[in-house]
Amino acid sequence: MKIGFIGTGIMGSGMIHNLLAADYTVNVFNRTKKHADSVIKQGAIWQESVAELTKNSDVIISIVGFPKDVEEVYFSDEGILTNSHAGQTVIDMTTSSPILANRIALEAETVGVTSLDAPVSGGDVGAQQGTLTIMVGGDKDIYQKMQPVFNAMGSSINRFGEAGMGQHAKMANQIMIAGTMTGMIESLVYADKVGLDKASVIDMTSGGAAQNWSMDNYGPRVLKGDYQPGFMAKHFLKDLRIVLTVANDLNLELPGTTVAEQLYDKMVQNPEWADLGTQGLIKLYESQNDKKGTNH
Amino acid sequence: MKIGFIGTGIMGSGMIHNLLAADYTVNVFNRTKKHADSVIKQGAIWQESVAELTKNSDVIISIVGFPKDVEEVYFSDEGILTNSHAGQTVIDMTTSSPILANRIALEAETVGVTSLDAPVSGGDVGAQQGTLTIMVGGDKDIYQKMQPVFNAMGSSINRFGEAGMGQHAKMANQIMIAGTMTGMIESLVYADKVGLDKASVIDMTSGGAAQNWSMDNYGPRVLKGDYQPGFMAKHFLKDLRIVLTVANDLNLELPGTTVAEQLYDKMVQNPEWADLGTQGLIKLYESQNDKKGTNH
Repeated sequence: MKIGFIGTGIMGSGMIHNLLAADYTVNVFNRTKKHADSVIKQGAIWQESVAELTKNSDVIISIVGFPKDVEEVYFSDEGILTNSHAGQTVIDMTTSSPILANRIALEAETVGVTSLDAPVSGGDVGAQQGTLTIMVGGDKDIYQKMQPVFNAMGSSINRFGEAGMGQHAKMANQIMIAGTMTGMIESLVYADKVGLDKASVIDMTSGGAAQNWSMDNYGPRVLKGDYQPGFMAKHFLKDLRIVLTVANDLNLELPGTTVAEQLYDKMVQNPEWADLGTQGLIKLYESQNDKKGTNH
Repeated sequence: MKIGFIGTGIMGSGMIHNLLAADYTVNVFNRTKKHADSVIKQGAIWQESVAELTKNSDVIISIVGFPKDVEEVYFSDEGILTNSHAGQTVIDMTTSSPILANRIALEAETVGVTSLDAPVSGGDVGAQQGTLTIMVGGDKDIYQKMQPVFNAMGSSINRFGEAGMGQHAKMANQIMIAGTMTGMIESLVYADKVGLDKASVIDMTSGGAAQNWSMDNYGPRVLKGDYQPGFMAKHFLKDLRIVLTVANDLNLELPGTTVAEQLYDKMVQNPEWADLGTQGLIKLYESQNDKKGTNH
């Protein structure tokens, strides 16, 4: 089975590494070729375009940036579905819109191509170590057929339903993280302002009802002033926007997630903060706080 | 050492049980006497008033409902500080205002009484089992002197600074929980609306970056329709109001916590929901959702 892999960013490179380690033939394409150098050295085969990659592969996997990138990769003249042939399978692993996942599934079907949506979590470390969580939507038989491919990249793989449900599961996950991130940042900002020792606050929360992964992992980084991305704020903002678009279509109000989206939007608008990790949100709070001065 | 204990609710009763088990003499008072019956059977000695209890005790501990109850217990004519004598120690373990904790400390000092603020977390189970987390503010020597008393009731005991800092630590904890609770409820509401299996969503979040105690513990209860309090929504609302009062005094904006306070305020205004646990917040979302109908 020849796999075509589109997107050799931090996530894609780790995933390709593990597909090669599982003895798959992997064709690769990336908008910026030099970002594919490391996987080419490992044995991946460079393709000059998405169209060429599509023609030379049985299963085509994409993990790109934003929904507009997904649209281009699938639907443009040079795109996957314009150049695919019956019997192929496409798997979009970008965290993207459930509606777009449905559209890919429908248009794929018309050309005899099967499809899955399969966004991931677990970050660059999970991608490198093959321990990603993979949330799959789409036909059950195709999901089962693709299990060996997923197993090469992830350690927790679940199907949540038909096309789009993998993306929906990822969104439910991101809504939860919106809560833990705003909670941890506001807790640390409050602690700082009232003169609590923040390390003690992080210790305290880790043992009780306030315990959460975000505080356990990002709390200590914030303390060290380490704002490098585990997960980039601008990508999280993209996810929250997808959530709110879906929620709006369903007449569903999510006030907590809405506030998180507004905060990350303000943060990402500042060019100095746009490329920071999600824990960098504390800089927005600190700057608003500085502007107003304190009466502490 | 004779301990006077004011407040024999669910929390107080468990704590008194453990003080008796550690061989302390415990005088008790409660606004509603029958709620003290069980600890009296265990050996606690009933007192007819706060004033009488104060006169007969060396260390006076209070754990009552709201800041106004704390004020009454400490400052009324029949209250602790009006009837205390030099050399006594008072410990307010109610989750209450840091400003009020400071006022108690100052007024206690003028009558030669030492004081600590020492709110707890860990719920009724922690109170019964003597495994509470206790967050202490106040003088270091008094804190050390009271260690055996705290050890009888808790398993994780930390001092966060001078008077009021125990309450501030508890507030930092509650801000974190505001995030995990709104996140988990919105995640489950979204999951339900888009047709995801909620049990699968709870499983998924438990293994990754979205992991948190609230989802792990309250998620399964929500699935079973179990809204009985681990922690009562109206008490959580009280805590969030204290947070926002402090934040407002400090010119500190906490948009996530503000939204959580607004949501719990709406929930608690409904008499059917006022006595539910914090996970009952999902009923507010479901009712708003029902009213608007769906286009799902």
